[in-house]
Amino acid sequence: MENKEIDLTAVLDHIEAHQDGYLERLKTYLRQPSISAHGVGIQETADLLQSWLEELGFEAEQKPTEGWPMVMGRRIEDESLPTVLLYGHYDVQPADPLDLWESPPFEPTVRNGRLYARGVGDNKGQHTAHLFAIESLLAVHGKLPCNVIFMLEGEEEVGSPNIASFMAKHKDEIDADLVVISDGPVDPSGKSSIEFGVRGVASFELRAKGANRDLHSGNFGGVAPNPLWTLVHLLATMKNDQGHITIDGLYDAVEPPTELERAALDTLPIDVEAVKAELELTQLDAPLERPYFERLSLWPTLTINGLHGGYGGPSSKTVLPNTAVAKCDIRLVEAQTVQDIFDKVEAHVKKHAPNVEFVRQGGMDPSKTPLDSPFTEPLKQAITAVQGDEPLLRPAMGGSLPNYVFTKTLGLHTFVVPYANADEDNHAPNENMEVWRIFNGIKTSAGILMYLGAWR
Amino acid sequence: MENKEIDLTAVLDHIEAHQDGYLERLKTYLRQPSISAHGVGIQETADLLQSWLEELGFEAEQKPTEGWPMVMGRRIEDESLPTVLLYGHYDVQPADPLDLWESPPFEPTVRNGRLYARGVGDNKGQHTAHLFAIESLLAVHGKLPCNVIFMLEGEEEVGSPNIASFMAKHKDEIDADLVVISDGPVDPSGKSSIEFGVRGVASFELRAKGANRDLHSGNFGGVAPNPLWTLVHLLATMKNDQGHITIDGLYDAVEPPTELERAALDTLPIDVEAVKAELELTQLDAPLERPYFERLSLWPTLTINGLHGGYGGPSSKTVLPNTAVAKCDIRLVEAQTVQDIFDKVEAHVKKHAPNVEFVRQGGMDPSKTPLDSPFTEPLKQAITAVQGDEPLLRPAMGGSLPNYVFTKTLGLHTFVVPYANADEDNHAPNENMEVWRIFNGIKTSAGILMYLGAWR
Repeated sequence: MENKEIDLTAVLDHIEAHQDGYLERLKTYLRQPSISAHGVGIQETADLLQSWLEELGFEAEQKPTEGWPMVMGRRIEDESLPTVLLYGHYDVQPADPLDLWESPPFEPTVRNGRLYARGVGDNKGQHTAHLFAIESLLAVHGKLPCNVIFMLEGEEEVGSPNIASFMAKHKDEIDADLVVISDGPVDPSGKSSIEFGVRGVASFELRAKGANRDLHSGNFGGVAPNPLWTLVHLLATMKNDQGHITIDGLYDAVEPPTELERAALDTLPIDVEAVKAELELTQLDAPLERPYFERLSLWPTLTINGLHGGYGGPSSKTVLPNTAVAKCDIRLVEAQTVQDIFDKVEAHVKKHAPNVEFVRQGGMDPSKTPLDSPFTEPLKQAITAVQGDEPLLRPAMGGSLPNYVFTKTLGLHTFVVPYANADEDNHAPNENMEVWRIFNGIKTSAGILMYLGAWR
Repeated sequence: MENKEIDLTAVLDHIEAHQDGYLERLKTYLRQPSISAHGVGIQETADLLQSWLEELGFEAEQKPTEGWPMVMGRRIEDESLPTVLLYGHYDVQPADPLDLWESPPFEPTVRNGRLYARGVGDNKGQHTAHLFAIESLLAVHGKLPCNVIFMLEGEEEVGSPNIASFMAKHKDEIDADLVVISDGPVDPSGKSSIEFGVRGVASFELRAKGANRDLHSGNFGGVAPNPLWTLVHLLATMKNDQGHITIDGLYDAVEPPTELERAALDTLPIDVEAVKAELELTQLDAPLERPYFERLSLWPTLTINGLHGGYGGPSSKTVLPNTAVAKCDIRLVEAQTVQDIFDKVEAHVKKHAPNVEFVRQGGMDPSKTPLDSPFTEPLKQAITAVQGDEPLLRPAMGGSLPNYVFTKTLGLHTFVVPYANADEDNHAPNENMEVWRIFNGIKTSAGILMYLGAWR
């Protein structure tokens, strides 16, 4: 495969000329709350998206799920062209604590070159980059350079509880060749990137019980078992102080990184001393010698998210508590699966602390696309052509997204190309996106569609 | 030493004839709140006690401390008689939650043969037993059978913060031969007992820190250390899952029990299956084979009173917390000392988790009086003579009292002879004392003073 000569000038000029209009349209979209956690404004937002897609000549519909509808759009220009599935989510996080916002979360406001609003980076300002790019491409060329399927979810911010069943049901209708997602921030260095994978996550709870009530530590210390000790001893069998997870078989499914992946990790920019200084850490987590990005991309983690039992007030209290709960998550790497990891943790708990209750909570499988995917080159070239700088290639992000439904259920190569600034403060007060990055996203989206369309 | 013929008839008859009056006097005393934690009514109560002591012919005074005054009373009948120090405390626990009281905590009420009021068992109904016994002895015999020093504390319920310094300062003035304390409940079997010792206690906090803020477990899992894991691994080095405390040298000072003590422990009544059933436990704490009373009397314990860090709400949250705190207490047995144990724990923490902050909180040394004390026999005979049944001899209680100031600072044999019913609910709503036990306490106190006085 080889690239044809591609001229982005006309479409980039068009975007440039219509920047103000696109910014106003984004503001309109941001004024519409769509808080999935509270069920606020979701349906109105889905209706708005559907109408925008229809205006751009898409067959659009809202496909029902057990929760909020999936907004689907489909525009096939030419069966011989590649079809890209563009995924995004139209719901946003709740805005509280409201008093920490400098301008109201649903009144988009530009200050110091940034647009402040709930959902601007996560994810409205990123999937509209795709939409507005398509509008400019249609305005300039009268047609799209490739076929496009939109899939816009309404419950990503509550953990995408229905995306797996939706995908299982509709996978035959989604005849795409690849998936492109713009979400999350760019690298802290400010460089653009292509993210090839995400870690999975499996959350669970460990519940330990002692007597039927709290007891006096003098009158019952040495007599009644202490559920906090039970959890301490159980947890200590699950991960050692060298940072090695000691649950039987936990690493069995872990795929070693390819040479390409390891080389890519080595090229990612990082100033470990700066990270430590910013977090006020004297050292990173054990094992100390592990390279920074291997920690986030190649290794599963076992994090205690919370551990609570007994007295937590001021001074001391001589109580022997009767319940204790630990909440944990395991970040999974390719090719671990949530189901298998849950089974292994449960077997471990049964063996080491049979009286501790193991409760499975949510989970997402990991996802990875090979670095030498045939789509890597056009994506890289498009980003370089628009932005003037080659993107970083990251084998896997540390966090989790439900990308496994694309890579595993659909079997498609899946790429995340983030547009938001690293300090977008998504999920926090004063969420923002640098205005130039909003326009940069629209331009990059246009470039990506043109390079993908020409790549045959 | 041999016992003289002792006739309790006259004094027991006198007590019997004045029961109603003593009960009314106790009610008057109970109507006077004396909550040291809130500083309510303490001074008024101290004044009342001083006047009662003066009415009984005691030299009485309130000796200042850094906190509430120590009410001291002294009546020396004859330098050749033994001098008994009677210790009690005139402060009470706060009464909340008030809405769980069936009658108001400071309106003493008799229901079903029990007197309900805050402080009735802990400790007003027990040290007045000594006072009223003295009143009857003086009424019947015109003098006391032995010399008596009263020491009534006003801040026992806030941990006796000043008793050690008080005792260090005044030890030369307290020329007693032994100490008798009536506090706490009788054995759950209902049998009376003489308690020869108490475990000590040393409370401390372990504080662990990670980054300067909570982090996302995906973006920082494997990068930033988790203070909950730090505490889990530290705590796991302090006690193993077999119930053995693994802090270097912690057992060094533990004195093996004497043959007498072990024999006494073996005779204490206990229905382990009933205890397990009542607490809804399937098994006792590790080590499983350890006899019940050895757990409470012969072994130190390391209890995690509370452990808190990270998310504790519903469902899951993928947070990597940045602080965690464990509160612990160690119950000490003879001849461990708070100072030495704190030093050993601190050295252990420094060695295994140098970044964890170790914070010393309160402590009380253990206390033990030999079972073959010369005063054991008269006490036993007095209790048997009044109650018709031999008391149990308990080498050490599981809980902690500041008795070390008597045994260690004063060098005196110290005996606790509890009068309250096992379900007195001290420190809880509806604190009560069976009315017959109130009178039984007065009679037993008279018997004790007569047998001690005659024992030469």
